Amino acid sequence: MSETELSDPVETPESELDEDDRLKADFVRAVLDAVEEGDGEAAREKVEPLHPADIADLIELTPGEQRPALVAAIGDLIDGEVLTEMNDWVRDALVESLDPKQIAGMAAELDTDDAVAIIEDLGEAGQRAVLRALDPDNRAAIEEALSYPEESAGRLMQRELIAVPEHWTVGDVIDYLRGDEELTTDFWEIFVVDPGHHPLGTCHLSWILRAPRSVLVGDVMKREQTLIPVDMDQEEVALRFQKYALISAAVVDGGGRLVGMITADDVVHIISQEAGEDALLMSGAGEGDINEPILDSYRARVRWLIANLATALVAATVITLFEGTISRMVALAALMPIVAGVGGNAGTQTMAVTVRALATNQLTESNTLRAIRREITIALLNGSTVAVVIGTAVALYYHHPALGAVIATAMMTNILIAGLAGVVVPLTLERLRADPAVASSVFVTMTTDSMGFFVFLGLATVSGLVG
Amino acid sequence: MSETELSDPVETPESELDEDDRLKADFVRAVLDAVEEGDGEAAREKVEPLHPADIADLIELTPGEQRPALVAAIGDLIDGEVLTEMNDWVRDALVESLDPKQIAGMAAELDTDDAVAIIEDLGEAGQRAVLRALDPDNRAAIEEALSYPEESAGRLMQRELIAVPEHWTVGDVIDYLRGDEELTTDFWEIFVVDPGHHPLGTCHLSWILRAPRSVLVGDVMKREQTLIPVDMDQEEVALRFQKYALISAAVVDGGGRLVGMITADDVVHIISQEAGEDALLMSGAGEGDINEPILDSYRARVRWLIANLATALVAATVITLFEGTISRMVALAALMPIVAGVGGNAGTQTMAVTVRALATNQLTESNTLRAIRREITIALLNGSTVAVVIGTAVALYYHHPALGAVIATAMMTNILIAGLAGVVVPLTLERLRADPAVASSVFVTMTTDSMGFFVFLGLATVSGLVG
Repeated sequence: MSETELSDPVETPESELDEDDRLKADFVRAVLDAVEEGDGEAAREKVEPLHPADIADLIELTPGEQRPALVAAIGDLIDGEVLTEMNDWVRDALVESLDPKQIAGMAAELDTDDAVAIIEDLGEAGQRAVLRALDPDNRAAIEEALSYPEESAGRLMQRELIAVPEHWTVGDVIDYLRGDEELTTDFWEIFVVDPGHHPLGTCHLSWILRAPRSVLVGDVMKREQTLIPVDMDQEEVALRFQKYALISAAVVDGGGRLVGMITADDVVHIISQEAGEDALLMSGAGEGDINEPILDSYRARVRWLIANLATALVAATVITLFEGTISRMVALAALMPIVAGVGGNAGTQTMAVTVRALATNQLTESNTLRAIRREITIALLNGSTVAVVIGTAVALYYHHPALGAVIATAMMTNILIAGLAGVVVPLTLERLRADPAVASSVFVTMTTDSMGFFVFLGLATVSGLVG
Repeated sequence: MSETELSDPVETPESELDEDDRLKADFVRAVLDAVEEGDGEAAREKVEPLHPADIADLIELTPGEQRPALVAAIGDLIDGEVLTEMNDWVRDALVESLDPKQIAGMAAELDTDDAVAIIEDLGEAGQRAVLRALDPDNRAAIEEALSYPEESAGRLMQRELIAVPEHWTVGDVIDYLRGDEELTTDFWEIFVVDPGHHPLGTCHLSWILRAPRSVLVGDVMKREQTLIPVDMDQEEVALRFQKYALISAAVVDGGGRLVGMITADDVVHIISQEAGEDALLMSGAGEGDINEPILDSYRARVRWLIANLATALVAATVITLFEGTISRMVALAALMPIVAGVGGNAGTQTMAVTVRALATNQLTESNTLRAIRREITIALLNGSTVAVVIGTAVALYYHHPALGAVIATAMMTNILIAGLAGVVVPLTLERLRADPAVASSVFVTMTTDSMGFFVFLGLATVSGLVG
């Protein structure tokens, strides 16, 4: 969103997009071919009609080693809006290659929140160089935003907003908006404040437009409003926008003064990111972005593989306890991974449901016991079904009903344990203020693996199956 | 959003909410105690100050068997807005217990999209009864919405919008908005249309408010706009809102005529749902909502457990091939799940990253090969690290360097296979137009389990480890 003029981004021609709004491979190739042939003019001509979001996509889709040539060719088409739309990793790499003056020029075009997003990941020296190149107003706004913690409302908000006193009429507001060229142009609500700049209420612009000029804004505004504390975590901000279906919200400082505004379009990508990252975290893939540098991905993932290795060693130790049993009936070795594996899958199902319910604030103290009872019931149903299937199959295949009974009992038990672990582990981590999406997998898998081997091989031993 | 009056929902007192904006357990208990003691008045008094979203939460947090009594006690506090905010499962059960006239009364208060959401899951007879109880205008609007496919833009859009001709001035627009009481009150943009009702452009309300009365809307509007086809899937709608940071967008029918509008607050919960459901789908937990009826959850999950059982049987068959080897060295039985398990984890990591990149339109034809190369590189790094750790540990623990070498080689190989499967399986499913989140797990796990056992036991056999 541009600060001083009506934002009027061009629309990418439909012919260059596939049915999912993604740039076609042919188009990307044509641009990169032109760049490679040194025909920057042709490349520029192709890129010019693109929407900033698609220019950002084009740069993301370009292999890392070809990006500098592309950027050099299309130069000034990469403006602040393009940077705002770009994947964090790609943007950070690009921004680091630019001149601080260029970055400052782009940042000055943008609202505070977007400007901050562009420079917050620069090194300290880089940040200082950019800040020096900004005019004092912009610099002060961005410096203040940077003083708030990362991923807080303070980083997310824009300072550009409309605040008016309660005693103004609708006519006063309209005249004010028409009169002052310096005001922001993209906003959805105006805020009514007292002389100490404390918010008193909010007016949707549609209410202003529908009311006669003589009415006081104090009579049009909604007094009950959702205020966002400036230090609130962005995930909480996103949940609050979802819960109350907000389009924009006022941000207040510790003293309750209006300091900024967050709009739904800023929150949308956080909602998507926060909701999508749980699948990545549960798998142990960290941030899991395909643009992340390979060494970062390696570091993020190998930690969890080593953790997984440790839990697998625990399970292996359990098996070692029963080596005597296995040596007398090698079929047990072939069957034991079934008990552990299906149990692990059942645990993962329950865990995914629990983690999601916690992330969406659906699971609270009031319904925890009910959720546990629910998962145990489902585990009983799943366990019986799977136990009957595997028990029958094994009894028939090995002509050994006792072996069928042992694997059925072990499967039933392990699926019950899995159901319990899948709900209790994330709940416990949440209560310990750890992120249940991050560490649940390791504990749940360790439980279902170890218990699967233990119960199956233990039953086989004590039941006298192997003589 | 109410159609005929300014929506002015009350704000839940902060004292009843915990730090995550969730109703406190004490409060829920106090309300339910009052209901149980037959003191409906006391319950009503406690619930009255709540925001509709919190009344919806209260009903969700109430155990199923106590809900009818609660609903009877707080009665008319449950209005259309409360239903709109409610979890689908809880709402459907509640709506089915209500009288069609009551439902019609609630639906009439709401915008089309919200009204449709309330009645779309009723049985056909129930839907007809509600439609009969509606006035003709509302009935026609809702019937038309119901004629579009589920989860399409047609279901999601509201018909209530402001469309004006191009030759109007800003002053004409303001006078029109002030003059007609029947118009919708909550909107963020107005649409400029030609006489055939084809959209020509969009004006943010802020642009109208900032322009002098004499200016033509045709000169204020943005001509390039993102139009949503009425039959577009809601997931695509959500991605388009994200990509172009939209607050609202025009919906057009096959003839390009403006038929409705979708606003960001309607899309926010879809973004969250679509991004969050991949973790559930990958785990095989179906929709995975804690409010889903237990038998539905059972059916959704047991299918995948049976599928998982089938793949586990494949892996068991692989082990059976090597029973002779295992019987000569039982330690192999204890070690083989490590190779399969850590490989499975590595495959799940890669799969989660790939599925997420596909879901967010980041992975296209242009960068597929690059993504595969990237995952292979990471697998080489992860594989070497884990192989060295497990190889050394096994060699030392068993005083058996050859066994260490075999497990290290098998682990390296399986992690490479896992990396390849984790990226190729979801890409292939996507190309076959299947949802990669739904079925990838089964194929990836089958690959990593079977290949883990095959490579480890196979190497142990051919290397002459067991003599």
